[in-house]
Amino acid sequence: MAGALRIRVLGSAAGGGFPQWNCLCPNCRLAWQGDPRVRPRTQSSLAISADGDRWLLLNASPDLRQQIFANSCLHPRGATRQTPIAGVFLTNGDADHLAGLLTLREQQAFTIYASASVLEQTRHGAFGVLNPGLVQRTPIALEARIDMGLGFSLRPFAVPGKVPLYLESDDVRIGEETDTTIGVEIECGTRRAVVIPGCADVSDDVLRRVERADALLFDGTTFTDDEMIRMGLSQKTAWRMGHCAIDGERGSLARFADAKIGRRVYTHINNSNPILVEDSPERARVEAAGWTVAHDGLEIAL
Amino acid sequence: MAGALRIRVLGSAAGGGFPQWNCLCPNCRLAWQGDPRVRPRTQSSLAISADGDRWLLLNASPDLRQQIFANSCLHPRGATRQTPIAGVFLTNGDADHLAGLLTLREQQAFTIYASASVLEQTRHGAFGVLNPGLVQRTPIALEARIDMGLGFSLRPFAVPGKVPLYLESDDVRIGEETDTTIGVEIECGTRRAVVIPGCADVSDDVLRRVERADALLFDGTTFTDDEMIRMGLSQKTAWRMGHCAIDGERGSLARFADAKIGRRVYTHINNSNPILVEDSPERARVEAAGWTVAHDGLEIAL
Repeated sequence: MAGALRIRVLGSAAGGGFPQWNCLCPNCRLAWQGDPRVRPRTQSSLAISADGDRWLLLNASPDLRQQIFANSCLHPRGATRQTPIAGVFLTNGDADHLAGLLTLREQQAFTIYASASVLEQTRHGAFGVLNPGLVQRTPIALEARIDMGLGFSLRPFAVPGKVPLYLESDDVRIGEETDTTIGVEIECGTRRAVVIPGCADVSDDVLRRVERADALLFDGTTFTDDEMIRMGLSQKTAWRMGHCAIDGERGSLARFADAKIGRRVYTHINNSNPILVEDSPERARVEAAGWTVAHDGLEIAL
Repeated sequence: MAGALRIRVLGSAAGGGFPQWNCLCPNCRLAWQGDPRVRPRTQSSLAISADGDRWLLLNASPDLRQQIFANSCLHPRGATRQTPIAGVFLTNGDADHLAGLLTLREQQAFTIYASASVLEQTRHGAFGVLNPGLVQRTPIALEARIDMGLGFSLRPFAVPGKVPLYLESDDVRIGEETDTTIGVEIECGTRRAVVIPGCADVSDDVLRRVERADALLFDGTTFTDDEMIRMGLSQKTAWRMGHCAIDGERGSLARFADAKIGRRVYTHINNSNPILVEDSPERARVEAAGWTVAHDGLEIAL
């Protein structure tokens, strides 16, 4: 399948993973018990390739070492020190998108692509293990097409979001469209996929962007806006965390209902989300609407 | 076994783990192939408990989420948000001892114990996810006994070492005894274990410290001082990386040969080390000398 665009889901869970280290919510309880109705999931990350030999990571999750081990396409080949990972593209500066960079040390050359503000976070403290003589930092600009020489191109765009938690100030603004929360269009020949791992609102701009995409991978963090509050897990709504719920009038299920999209996939799924349980009514509902619920190892070939 | 001191090896590999993400040295090649003569290993970390209910982590490796999943004693119990992990003790500021802290987020209270210089590293950039309102930072002093209320006490002490790689200056000094590289004595009633995950030289002071310990877990990074150079993996000797080789006149095997120690265990093992291969002559040699080669999940009960 030469020339096919391959998008491989390395991790399909939101920050914390599934199960989350300190959580015994009903979903996590099933996962700790090894219940066959739920699959454990590592934290959000994708690998993209047009030739199967060289891969770009979209975000570097804290689970990256485990994800490389689980995906043979990312194992070293040929030389004593080698990696098929040509670069890492960061969609924002969340700790769960950055931490995996600490795994990519050991004197290996690759390129980090991110907005200037996110790149700044990759220079602090322990991230200094990424030798600047080998690891190139390339700033990206919104709406500018990036050709990394890998047979496909990326175009980042702003979506409604917020700054990373650890950079929040007292007057944090949700839903702003800045370079702190971005989606990416991936183009390979005539094929086009859109990946939006975090998005506070499916605005009309977002709808226009995904129209006629061959695939959409979208923020599936929570099913309802207040589910973490109702479950006693957090005092924050999905919106306050910079995410758009699946359900509800303004939810992604309703907003994308009439969009023309080839394949639609929910990923970045929080442990509280009932779509994680394979026989749940919520899972049935999103599947009936044509969505796939991503799991680790899912590959989309276009 | 009430009151028994339990030391559980969560990860037994040095930084990078085994196999290492970008390595095809002969050992890693076996590991990627799933050869039964080698066991994959995650990065260096221990869990310590006197009651089986509350655990102290000794270092937080990048693989911590995977390690918690693999060790049921660390799974949450009882409440919706809970953890048996009461604290994390950092023996130095290496990226592979700190990165796991990024996993311990999600509004959970626990305590980080480390020297003032290492604690400073846990306040930078993405490490800000550890809410200072919940995560207590407690500075430790060399030679001062720390009772965390867990039924055992710790006493940190300096060993010959060096500063973390990302803090190295041009005139890095190896073998200094400062608070940047420490070992710990663990005391529980009449039992005493000594853990030294990194140590550039088995000095006479180190020998005196371990004498009559019920268990010693010691730096097993490399077998020979120059093995990474000979294998074309690095231009550094073990000494230059702040580690004492197992073999050789000044090696740990010879230096500890006459020490009176109950149980002796090599851990923090680099992927280049031939003791990782179960039928290797080097493995046979250390075992004949009374050493156990640690693997993930090994538990020492005293």
